[in-house]
Amino acid sequence: MTKLGKLYGLGIGPGDPELLTLKAHRILTTVPVIAYPTSENGNSLVRAIAAEFIRFDQIEIPICLPFNIRESSQPYYDKGAEQIAEYLEFGQDVAVLCEGEPMLYGSFMYIFQRLSGEFPTEVVPGISSTLASAAMLGVPLTYRNDVLSIIPATLDEIKLRDRLTVADAAIIIKLGRHFAKVCKILDELGLLHRAFYIERATQTEQRIIAITEVEPLSVPYWSLVLIPSQSQG
Amino acid sequence: MTKLGKLYGLGIGPGDPELLTLKAHRILTTVPVIAYPTSENGNSLVRAIAAEFIRFDQIEIPICLPFNIRESSQPYYDKGAEQIAEYLEFGQDVAVLCEGEPMLYGSFMYIFQRLSGEFPTEVVPGISSTLASAAMLGVPLTYRNDVLSIIPATLDEIKLRDRLTVADAAIIIKLGRHFAKVCKILDELGLLHRAFYIERATQTEQRIIAITEVEPLSVPYWSLVLIPSQSQG
Repeated sequence: MTKLGKLYGLGIGPGDPELLTLKAHRILTTVPVIAYPTSENGNSLVRAIAAEFIRFDQIEIPICLPFNIRESSQPYYDKGAEQIAEYLEFGQDVAVLCEGEPMLYGSFMYIFQRLSGEFPTEVVPGISSTLASAAMLGVPLTYRNDVLSIIPATLDEIKLRDRLTVADAAIIIKLGRHFAKVCKILDELGLLHRAFYIERATQTEQRIIAITEVEPLSVPYWSLVLIPSQSQG
Repeated sequence: MTKLGKLYGLGIGPGDPELLTLKAHRILTTVPVIAYPTSENGNSLVRAIAAEFIRFDQIEIPICLPFNIRESSQPYYDKGAEQIAEYLEFGQDVAVLCEGEPMLYGSFMYIFQRLSGEFPTEVVPGISSTLASAAMLGVPLTYRNDVLSIIPATLDEIKLRDRLTVADAAIIIKLGRHFAKVCKILDELGLLHRAFYIERATQTEQRIIAITEVEPLSVPYWSLVLIPSQSQG
């Protein structure tokens, strides 16, 4: 019987290729097969981040996800996991590339759920855009006894308000079309003057502007608002 | 006038030297001067993590911190910042090594407060032990609309209970002598069966055991409890 291949979940980081870890770089450049999510039009942010390290002789498995966000992605992950499993059964290692940190809202978790019970699996942590944003903004996040909450902007107003009220420091993610709602709540809570805004942290298109200057309709999904702690250590 | 040197805050990651980013590795191996916190007995976890990359001809500035936790560290950071500033004024770049992510409870923030107004400063994000623990445990943390809270075990019982009650997923840090208190609260909230325990994530002494098997008096500061979200994506 052939020895099974190993499944890697590789954290590729938030955008700057130099923010790959030495370990992710080693595995990425030595596995025979890589897999990554793409949109229906073939665009893949995570493949673009890792592009300079991908060898011409590596087999690539794009996991095509539906453009329509109302459509379930689960059948697409089923299909991707099946394709990956074929290589693993054949004894070939497969690295699944994942933006940021694989275990934090990561697409890799859906592959992990399907295959980690059957195949040897290793997750390699990556730099999350949430924390990298603090470094890019030059803003210390939390001191000593502070609680940090990472909060999706997709929550309804009541939950958003409740969660923000009790956080010493907060990172609000997945802004996109929820930006105006978030700003309204920050204003009500007296947090707007403490809030920092950043788009596409560490990517070449990174943009930092005052939150009051942001045009709500142009806010991308890959943007976030950071509210640092007020303690001073 | 001499061009000022650049101050780097380098995230060195949670313990495995291979979890340095390519960028932190490049800067660490090329700057003329490095600085890092040490305890009074000369032990420095962050220097030990980076040891294999430090060159014999690099100047080292140990920032000696007091052993007694009741004593303020601030005068020690004053002194460290002064020593670092001497090299920066002389035009030499200085990299301050920091465990995990510099802007998240990081010792570098105290140097940043003192020097970033005077000298060009760049923070290089690092892998935080909080998120790396999820990868080491093989536990997906958060899906879609989940809120993640990072909560210091040093909080009092009431605050700990309140923060844990509203978190979909939580990472409890700085356990040490607070472990028994945390366990009691997790038990009261019905969270104990969902909790994972890990010591010294990604370090060579990493240890993963069932939380119910942990000896409360032997819990190190560098341990944490992780409560993953119950959603399934």
